[in-house]
Amino acid sequence: MQIDVIKIGGNVIDDPQALQAFLQQFAAQPGPKVLVHGGGKVATRMSERLGIAPQLVEGRRITDAATLEVVTMVYAGLINKQIAASLQALGVNALGVCGADANLLRSRKRGGTAIDYGFVGDVEEVDGQMLAGLLAQGLTPVISPITHDGKGQLLNTNADTMAAQVAMGLQAAGHEVSLLFCFEKAGVLRDVQDPESLIEDISVAEYDRLKADGSIAGGMLPKLHNAFEAARAGVRCVYVGLAEQLLRDIPRGTAIHP
Amino acid sequence: MQIDVIKIGGNVIDDPQALQAFLQQFAAQPGPKVLVHGGGKVATRMSERLGIAPQLVEGRRITDAATLEVVTMVYAGLINKQIAASLQALGVNALGVCGADANLLRSRKRGGTAIDYGFVGDVEEVDGQMLAGLLAQGLTPVISPITHDGKGQLLNTNADTMAAQVAMGLQAAGHEVSLLFCFEKAGVLRDVQDPESLIEDISVAEYDRLKADGSIAGGMLPKLHNAFEAARAGVRCVYVGLAEQLLRDIPRGTAIHP
Repeated sequence: MQIDVIKIGGNVIDDPQALQAFLQQFAAQPGPKVLVHGGGKVATRMSERLGIAPQLVEGRRITDAATLEVVTMVYAGLINKQIAASLQALGVNALGVCGADANLLRSRKRGGTAIDYGFVGDVEEVDGQMLAGLLAQGLTPVISPITHDGKGQLLNTNADTMAAQVAMGLQAAGHEVSLLFCFEKAGVLRDVQDPESLIEDISVAEYDRLKADGSIAGGMLPKLHNAFEAARAGVRCVYVGLAEQLLRDIPRGTAIHP
Repeated sequence: MQIDVIKIGGNVIDDPQALQAFLQQFAAQPGPKVLVHGGGKVATRMSERLGIAPQLVEGRRITDAATLEVVTMVYAGLINKQIAASLQALGVNALGVCGADANLLRSRKRGGTAIDYGFVGDVEEVDGQMLAGLLAQGLTPVISPITHDGKGQLLNTNADTMAAQVAMGLQAAGHEVSLLFCFEKAGVLRDVQDPESLIEDISVAEYDRLKADGSIAGGMLPKLHNAFEAARAGVRCVYVGLAEQLLRDIPRGTAIHP
């Protein structure tokens, strides 16, 4: 089966109009597809409303028990179900899930690091066959970035990582997968201020060079790390860019090569 | 297929130890099964923490937009995913869903009533075939009481009604269904103060008599209304009672007869 795994991030989630426009493009995308979504600022605002102060250790945000409750509510509940209902209205038979559902993504609580990140999970196992089975039934999985450890504990997991792992799991199950990371830029830019400076193809060697000279920094680093991991694992097409330029016959963005 | 549809309510949800004990009994129940859960007081507490005052019209609680967000977060997110993860740890391949997922339960916003209940949905259509297909794959649907109207709107729906509709939908799809309403009493009691006064079988005629003389009142009325609706629709076994007495070879509780 040819399958598109599409990741959307906070900039889309946080803007109801942008989200609706994206979901229309997503609905129009032909063939079997999976949507992986982040949580954007909704969880941060909900934490603030509940008086839960962000827990930072050495500048890194950690997921304490109260924060895990918030992200579970917001990602796997509010956002996931609003997307499912919106897609149903657009004729897509969406099935909103998190990694605990159907045991789709099992993770391990991050440990052995200098910082205790709290209830954060690193994906260990993806059930690509189960996902493909759901797709074969005409369902469109919509996956929120919460996983479980198989022992009853939910864990907060990075949505870019989820998307990469889902693509890799489907690839390992024998499918031809395209992985499209949609975000707020046209792709990897030579000059972050200049949208015309798009790099259309990027290899690990070039990535390392751009990282070293500081051209790629900040939030792009973990995104590209996940994209390269998927490409190295054999995912055929991996792109980062704007949804409206990636969800078309010939995607335009930055293609990631192993 | 013989399928058990099991409903648990607030008294179990609100007590982590009782919930864990229930989930162990549920996991041990052989054969295909569906769990429908309510939300208990978790949503009420979350509303209070968020400063959302309960909206009451003529003494009836209504679901305004802010409350719908809370119940979607709490029912379809927090509670549903905690149950899914706990069941996975017990070896049950749980799939946590709401009615919008896979278009399982489509509802209509309640209208034409003297009171505007807000974002409350009355179930119109259940996809019993889709549910049976998920069961046939070895999945155990765990259903939270949120539905959708097919036009992108999520709606709050009574969990007892959800359970009855799920049972009726599976029955209509050609399956033999048992519907077990688990709650905090042994069943319908002749004297609510005396747990020994259990009525083991109840017909509509007896129900009407007990309603008229005030023996059955309060929260039991809508629960029994839903139970009788399912029994009338042909659901073979309908029981109300304690989980530990219903989830066994020969259920002990009150059997509902049309």
